[in-house]
Amino acid sequence: MAKDITPRDQDYARWYTDVVTRSTLADYSPVKGCMVIRPHGTALWENMQRGLDGMFKATGHENAYFPLFIPKSFLAREAEHVEGFAKECAIVTHTRLKATEIDGRRTVVPDPDSRLEEELIVRPTSETIIYSMFARWIQSWRDLPILLNQWANVVRWEMRTRLFLRTTEFLWQEGHTAHATHEEAIDEARRMLEVYRTFAEEWLAIPVLTGTKTDSEKFAGALTTYCIEALMQDGKALQAGTSHDLGQNFARAFDVKYQDASGRWEHVWNTSWGVSTRLIGALVMCHGDDDGLVLPPRVAPVQVAIVPIWRSDAQRETVLAEGRALRDRLAARGLSVRLDERDNVNPGFKFADWELKGVPLRLELGPRDVESRQVVAVSRLDRTKTPCAWDGLEDAVASLLDRLQAELLDRARERRDAATRDVETRDEFVEALADGGFVRARFVPDAEVEAQIQQETKATVRLIPFDEPDDPGPCVWTGRPAQRRAVFARAY
Amino acid sequence: MAKDITPRDQDYARWYTDVVTRSTLADYSPVKGCMVIRPHGTALWENMQRGLDGMFKATGHENAYFPLFIPKSFLAREAEHVEGFAKECAIVTHTRLKATEIDGRRTVVPDPDSRLEEELIVRPTSETIIYSMFARWIQSWRDLPILLNQWANVVRWEMRTRLFLRTTEFLWQEGHTAHATHEEAIDEARRMLEVYRTFAEEWLAIPVLTGTKTDSEKFAGALTTYCIEALMQDGKALQAGTSHDLGQNFARAFDVKYQDASGRWEHVWNTSWGVSTRLIGALVMCHGDDDGLVLPPRVAPVQVAIVPIWRSDAQRETVLAEGRALRDRLAARGLSVRLDERDNVNPGFKFADWELKGVPLRLELGPRDVESRQVVAVSRLDRTKTPCAWDGLEDAVASLLDRLQAELLDRARERRDAATRDVETRDEFVEALADGGFVRARFVPDAEVEAQIQQETKATVRLIPFDEPDDPGPCVWTGRPAQRRAVFARAY
Repeated sequence: MAKDITPRDQDYARWYTDVVTRSTLADYSPVKGCMVIRPHGTALWENMQRGLDGMFKATGHENAYFPLFIPKSFLAREAEHVEGFAKECAIVTHTRLKATEIDGRRTVVPDPDSRLEEELIVRPTSETIIYSMFARWIQSWRDLPILLNQWANVVRWEMRTRLFLRTTEFLWQEGHTAHATHEEAIDEARRMLEVYRTFAEEWLAIPVLTGTKTDSEKFAGALTTYCIEALMQDGKALQAGTSHDLGQNFARAFDVKYQDASGRWEHVWNTSWGVSTRLIGALVMCHGDDDGLVLPPRVAPVQVAIVPIWRSDAQRETVLAEGRALRDRLAARGLSVRLDERDNVNPGFKFADWELKGVPLRLELGPRDVESRQVVAVSRLDRTKTPCAWDGLEDAVASLLDRLQAELLDRARERRDAATRDVETRDEFVEALADGGFVRARFVPDAEVEAQIQQETKATVRLIPFDEPDDPGPCVWTGRPAQRRAVFARAY
Repeated sequence: MAKDITPRDQDYARWYTDVVTRSTLADYSPVKGCMVIRPHGTALWENMQRGLDGMFKATGHENAYFPLFIPKSFLAREAEHVEGFAKECAIVTHTRLKATEIDGRRTVVPDPDSRLEEELIVRPTSETIIYSMFARWIQSWRDLPILLNQWANVVRWEMRTRLFLRTTEFLWQEGHTAHATHEEAIDEARRMLEVYRTFAEEWLAIPVLTGTKTDSEKFAGALTTYCIEALMQDGKALQAGTSHDLGQNFARAFDVKYQDASGRWEHVWNTSWGVSTRLIGALVMCHGDDDGLVLPPRVAPVQVAIVPIWRSDAQRETVLAEGRALRDRLAARGLSVRLDERDNVNPGFKFADWELKGVPLRLELGPRDVESRQVVAVSRLDRTKTPCAWDGLEDAVASLLDRLQAELLDRARERRDAATRDVETRDEFVEALADGGFVRARFVPDAEVEAQIQQETKATVRLIPFDEPDDPGPCVWTGRPAQRRAVFARAY
């Protein structure tokens, strides 16, 4: 059955868009750069939220909700911050529409009398508004640390957008914390990056590198940005999450101070960290194939699809009755399972449909299976078929799903490792970057050099890996003495 | 201990604000009309979301997410709709800030070159953007019904705001559905109102009336608005949820059509329905007292607070050790429980603090309790003390919480019923409305008469109750023959 999906090797970008839209994860909206997240995509995001939220709470964080709007003057208070976001923000200037006629046609226009004294920016991120509240809430060292997280929508006016990967509005979480010492803040920022790494690998089955951004790639207003970076099947990198040591930059801008045990007033130390619906794009591009989505069982909205097969009406009734019983048993085990009872499409269509939607496991149930009291489990990963007896089906299915989750991560890690190379010379470097993948090369971070490299190779420093032993030698680009390797790639 | 809460009978409005801010549900923000929902309020809202979301899914709905922005022309397409929202909307006109100097001071202003061709409205509600997508997704009768819900933030530019009750930005859910027939749409709108009634009464312990709004109070663009109305302790009504039969108004405006089984194209029939963080305001005002919040166990972020009591260090260790064991047992039962280990405040302070935060049950655990292997459970409702043996504590606490949940609803219902009166004459009507409460009077709905009544009594028709037997007689205001009673009240 044709699914209208462009094959990956024909046009990867097209393949991506086809998979996202045909699998009904998302759709384009009439608002430029904004997308509609459809029920399949929303359920996936909710599962991801649940996983992350549990990890945030287990590390002592609480959720809160801050205003959508940020006064212009707040954004402007931290110099690098406003510089970073000024060129891509939605600005609210009026609060009423009034009816009028233009060229004899009735329409509505912003009422000039409703012009705001100070414009409001739709939050591109919430450091400024949140730390202005911290300034009210924090007095003593006893009030620290403050460990908050917010689930919210944010807006960054992007010129070139792609579903999930880069949209004007997106959904995310942003953690915001305040600490008494810089050391505590760094620990927090690193701890949350580790939460992201764990989530990416154990929930999404996406292997990631962890490390530090160079200054030219760090968050506008941060001292240091840590990140997780994943590799997509086309050899391009994707920044999947960031965690920032903000130092006292915002504490100074918003006068966030605490009185220490000895009575002295000190500025607090902040961190912020976030992941977004972009992770859905990463999921699609890391695991998907020419038949559609492939979703890891831990976050799949539907983990098991039962497809009944019949020829006669009598068979239909028997097969459906048994299918319902099996569905109920698997659901009672806590699995997300659907029985596909549609009678206007054939089993082949249903197979393809559930494959397109990325359901990890399909159970085929025909009259002969009913007779032998079994089902045939088909893996979305490689279509491996495993006959499973009805007795003990819950355990068999749960263990197939566990295995599939592990296989997905293994496959992605093998791909990633196979596409990661150490290079020594500039020629090797340029060639490797053109081939795609992660390229590890000795480098001395320098904004000008990075700009030149990007100009000539379209690649950027993705990160400087944590905790690597020193590996001195000449910088791959300038020949200057370098102490370690940075990881380069072309990136989304 | 002074909690700085104004007593209700001294200044009810002040009491409300004191309770909301002191209990740390929410705080004012630097953005006019917008509030910060603090962790206690956010956890409460998340519990309410979980309850409602389960009920939406049990009635066949799926979640989706649509853009924050609505093109101006979309809002304008349904005449009554734009009329209803034009005077209170946040309008985005620019997408870049640029640096400049004003009076020698560096600042940023909207870059005139980034003026949008068509202004975007921050959604006050999402009918228009959602039904424009329905037009793409719906072709055949097989695509119906569509049953969606969205959890989102919305913005209505309110001039006079109050925490939770009326804020410029608020959080809510909006259900949006499309059906093949008007009958199905009406059934859906009524079904979801019943979900709201069940949720208000069984989860929030807030008794509500259900019925229909008069035309002058209905949603802008609806054929009919159904609602649930609650009564607060000061005798004012609060609209706690609405469900709209939208007829084909939006289907016509956005050309949402389906082909029926015979091949004919027909417009769909829509419903929408929503409740918001306003429900938190209702909770506060329905159950709270001069000591603070009183939260129903089913939605309380903390259901049980264990307050350990000690004099000596030796006692402290024993009491805390036993307290932790009891906490872990109750948590294992699925209860949300905190052991208050703070050692910089005394037990009296802790009692007052957990009362302020509305925790339904407090367990007092002192050295003598440890000796006799019991705790004293204190109800937040009326400070009733119930000694509970450690053996079987889980069951005892669960059943105390169940009883408390039921008592809260009973108490609220008694108050509501005691403040509900049938009146026959205009004098009685005016007097009763001045006293507060629900006033039931025969009435012939009429926008002009309603405006006059509001002018003279500050009261509005809250609803016309469902399914009441005919009760003919003269309209309380005009003397015209009326068939039934409407419910009037002054309202939030």
